[in-house]
Amino acid sequence: MAASGVFLTFEGIDGSGKSTQARLLAETMRARGRDVVLTREPGGSPGAEEIRRLLVEGDPARWSPETEILLFTAARRDHLEKTIQPALAAGRTVISDRFADSTRVYQGVARADLQASVNRLHDLMIGREPDLTFIIDMDPEAALARGLARQSGEDRFEDFGLGFQQALRAGFLALADEYPGRCHLIDGNRPADAVAADIARIAQGLA
Amino acid sequence: MAASGVFLTFEGIDGSGKSTQARLLAETMRARGRDVVLTREPGGSPGAEEIRRLLVEGDPARWSPETEILLFTAARRDHLEKTIQPALAAGRTVISDRFADSTRVYQGVARADLQASVNRLHDLMIGREPDLTFIIDMDPEAALARGLARQSGEDRFEDFGLGFQQALRAGFLALADEYPGRCHLIDGNRPADAVAADIARIAQGLA
Repeated sequence: MAASGVFLTFEGIDGSGKSTQARLLAETMRARGRDVVLTREPGGSPGAEEIRRLLVEGDPARWSPETEILLFTAARRDHLEKTIQPALAAGRTVISDRFADSTRVYQGVARADLQASVNRLHDLMIGREPDLTFIIDMDPEAALARGLARQSGEDRFEDFGLGFQQALRAGFLALADEYPGRCHLIDGNRPADAVAADIARIAQGLA
Repeated sequence: MAASGVFLTFEGIDGSGKSTQARLLAETMRARGRDVVLTREPGGSPGAEEIRRLLVEGDPARWSPETEILLFTAARRDHLEKTIQPALAAGRTVISDRFADSTRVYQGVARADLQASVNRLHDLMIGREPDLTFIIDMDPEAALARGLARQSGEDRFEDFGLGFQQALRAGFLALADEYPGRCHLIDGNRPADAVAADIARIAQGLA
């Protein structure tokens, strides 16, 4: 029987460099001979990409936070069933740019009263956590000064403002405290290759 | 302050005549001077209609039962927020062709092991039940013989077979037993005007 694969995720604010780091870790692990699936949320499977379009297109206010959580969870369930679980069952390494932690932190900041519903919905319909999560920590102002935030292509700094990004950062730091076994906090205020070297060392121990 | 409106739903197998009866009751109540919103599921609001398209278009097997339940619940949440609740708050009568009971019965027949998840998801994200539900009961073979089933436009008899429709009927009968205060079982094996007269009499007592 093939060994079960390892499931790694990257989390952090927009402009923290997590998508770059996810790609660099995929390259490093492939160079070590691992069979890697690099994926992202929302999306990551054909059905989830269709649900993603409902979430990102049109008026951002057209879905309530409750409906949005249900759509994110539907997309995540499809991503898990169609992309993540088959790859893990085949012994492959899965690296995802965002997963359930993003929903926890974004909804926790936008609507703290929905935090309990987010967690119950996750337990009921998703269940699975990553084996290891890298949280790339960076001060939003520093990300903006380095131009990282503007390169993200999502314009969330303009849409939501620096205060929202600072609240998200605090949310990710709290998450790292809440799941100390799974989450590794990585200092993102350094050159990308130094950050990547830290991450590669930690991942080597696990996968 | 305006009186809160009344929320009525119609349930039953394909070809039972429930859509016809929903329309006839709306006409009767309008003739009595009520302000009626006639709606249906899946759909019933612009956002829910978009989610409906994901559910009814493409390969029917492309969503797992779990993802399908999440998408139905997302559509229902939007329908409730955007159509049903505002109408009830304005004192209007809402008549919906299908609501949460359809998900309970269809998923109960297709995947009995998901029944508990369906109910927990409903309690967590929907909460609201109709004030009164008419379950139009009809033998699937009789519906087919009367040509009602083929007029439904959904071809579910062809898609799933008579055995599936018989299991659905049993599911709706069990539902009527489970919620005796809310659900009224209506004998659909009669001319439409006789069925409509029964329903109008019951609805008069409530709304």
